[in-house]
Amino acid sequence: MNKSGKIRRVRVKLGCRSYWIHIGSLQKTSVELGKLISGRGVLLITDANVEKTGVVEDVLEDLSGASDLGLIVLKPGERTKTLGAVEDITGFAARHNYDRKSCFVALSGGVGGDLTGFAAGIYKRGVEFVQIPTTLLAMVDSSVGGKTGADLPEGKNLVGLFHQPAGVFIDPEFLRTLPACEWRNGLAEVIKYGIIRDGEFFEFLWANRKRLNRRGADADLLGAVIERCVTIKAEVVAADECESGLRAILNYGHTFGHALEQLSGFKLAHGSAVAIGMVLAGRLACDLGIFDRESADRVEALLKAVGLPVSVPAGYAASDIIEAMKGDKKNEGGRIRLVLPESLGRVRITSEVSEEKLFEFLNRQV
Amino acid sequence: MNKSGKIRRVRVKLGCRSYWIHIGSLQKTSVELGKLISGRGVLLITDANVEKTGVVEDVLEDLSGASDLGLIVLKPGERTKTLGAVEDITGFAARHNYDRKSCFVALSGGVGGDLTGFAAGIYKRGVEFVQIPTTLLAMVDSSVGGKTGADLPEGKNLVGLFHQPAGVFIDPEFLRTLPACEWRNGLAEVIKYGIIRDGEFFEFLWANRKRLNRRGADADLLGAVIERCVTIKAEVVAADECESGLRAILNYGHTFGHALEQLSGFKLAHGSAVAIGMVLAGRLACDLGIFDRESADRVEALLKAVGLPVSVPAGYAASDIIEAMKGDKKNEGGRIRLVLPESLGRVRITSEVSEEKLFEFLNRQV
Repeated sequence: MNKSGKIRRVRVKLGCRSYWIHIGSLQKTSVELGKLISGRGVLLITDANVEKTGVVEDVLEDLSGASDLGLIVLKPGERTKTLGAVEDITGFAARHNYDRKSCFVALSGGVGGDLTGFAAGIYKRGVEFVQIPTTLLAMVDSSVGGKTGADLPEGKNLVGLFHQPAGVFIDPEFLRTLPACEWRNGLAEVIKYGIIRDGEFFEFLWANRKRLNRRGADADLLGAVIERCVTIKAEVVAADECESGLRAILNYGHTFGHALEQLSGFKLAHGSAVAIGMVLAGRLACDLGIFDRESADRVEALLKAVGLPVSVPAGYAASDIIEAMKGDKKNEGGRIRLVLPESLGRVRITSEVSEEKLFEFLNRQV
Repeated sequence: MNKSGKIRRVRVKLGCRSYWIHIGSLQKTSVELGKLISGRGVLLITDANVEKTGVVEDVLEDLSGASDLGLIVLKPGERTKTLGAVEDITGFAARHNYDRKSCFVALSGGVGGDLTGFAAGIYKRGVEFVQIPTTLLAMVDSSVGGKTGADLPEGKNLVGLFHQPAGVFIDPEFLRTLPACEWRNGLAEVIKYGIIRDGEFFEFLWANRKRLNRRGADADLLGAVIERCVTIKAEVVAADECESGLRAILNYGHTFGHALEQLSGFKLAHGSAVAIGMVLAGRLACDLGIFDRESADRVEALLKAVGLPVSVPAGYAASDIIEAMKGDKKNEGGRIRLVLPESLGRVRITSEVSEEKLFEFLNRQV
């Protein structure tokens, strides 16, 4: 990866809550990071996996303009994403007298980023925070848009709030050390953006599928891919910050996906679950006559080409999947809400698919 | 109290988050309550003390238009105000499949109201909630304005968020069974409104001080007092929802008060602490030459007349009070922020009083 590569910047337009996403070497964007935190109390939150890569020291250096600088290292993994962890973070801040002008910084994948944003959103009723995502999934998805949260024993992301970051700093260099599974988790979301909003981007990904089928693709390609993804996400979020309409399209593949993840006891990786979910949504849309079979096949082929699964693993019952889907927090009035493709680059949101139809369809997929 | 008494309504003007405060018998305002919750999942949250008074059944009846109706009874008292309680409430909602259109209803004093609002603010990233305050303090203060939160082991209200209720229903009838200590807690805040914003209201309270010096004052007087308090609070909140300026005047008496509460291990009641805090702020303002002695004496006399304490209990050291004040979440950049009276009806916010001056002043008060 070329450290002298270009810096790309995307603006998330949300009025007084607008912010910049900086894509490029942190060595080059640290000036902007320094401006955001200058003279303020800063609490850096990372996890043990990120710490092992040795980047924490560099980032602490970038944050040296803070009036006070603390570090919390979380246990990695979804199990850490609890209200208990939020209590730990905010308790640490309280014991060290962080005031309302403080800034929390997440140097982390999605779990740490969500927790940091949540803790920042409720500490003294809200302080600012900055995202420095370390995984592809966090770079293209969770670090942008202000969704923060934690899990409950009852399910994922059941508590949280919308709290926009003050800035996002994406350094693709971090992806060099990313495990293959984490890389694929991110690619599932990357492909999602093409299907829901940008047919041309889908074609671009298809044309570059071989270069994407490994971690550490070259800096130019990665920079371009990440820029396109966060630009789409920024557009969608700007149009519908609090998910009252359009924003739900980002959930394409996730209604089926979350159900499969949950039924697997979270052994199925998020990206794999979403990939299978996108395939299922495509096939269902074909069944309903709103999506053509050729496009559905191309979705499957692209996901396969980058190493993602495209069918429901053995042992899942249609009725269990439906039961799990009913718990989705996007449902309203007891009806399951689905995001279904109409073409490559366009989806619709519907609550019109009956449970009977869904059961009949899923029974053929398991 | 006259159940056929008049209904008073105050609008809290916050754009799309505007709402009504209804003051009067719940028997008469339950139509509006019914409209707010009709056809939605409703989770009623109360505490064991309120349950004992027998009002829960009546309120459940008022909520019978809900599509689903759950009840949580919290342990009464400040100790319940934890993130653990928030997890219990949101976990209950998740297990019972409450969706994003649900509405939480707090039938409670300040603790339950703050917890309910907080839980509603983060459950599935935010559902609506309604306040039915049962104490005078909650009626005139905490139920209005959208401040929600919980305590951390490190201090009170250190986590929370601004989340406005969809409506507030104040039935002064509930005050009949209120313990005397709780009544005085509320009166301290009532008197605060006069001092910070409305000299005429201060005179009204002075003129009626004998009628206020007992619980269960008559319905007309109570209705008028509550209406004036929530009108002032609504004005202040509308001008500064998230406490970036004016709203801090509501904190008059609270910087000293919170410190005393904390040093007492919360054995000193909130109202008593705030009363002493208001007296201290008045005396300090006199010392600084911005407030006249006669007005300061009248503040003391009114607080005394309704049974509130006006001097620091024995055993507190000036240095400890200052240390505790430094932890206040309204401070910024390490400076203690104070709200000081200039006249009866007008206060100023200042961070200009040095620690030395404060120490010298407090040393004469303890």
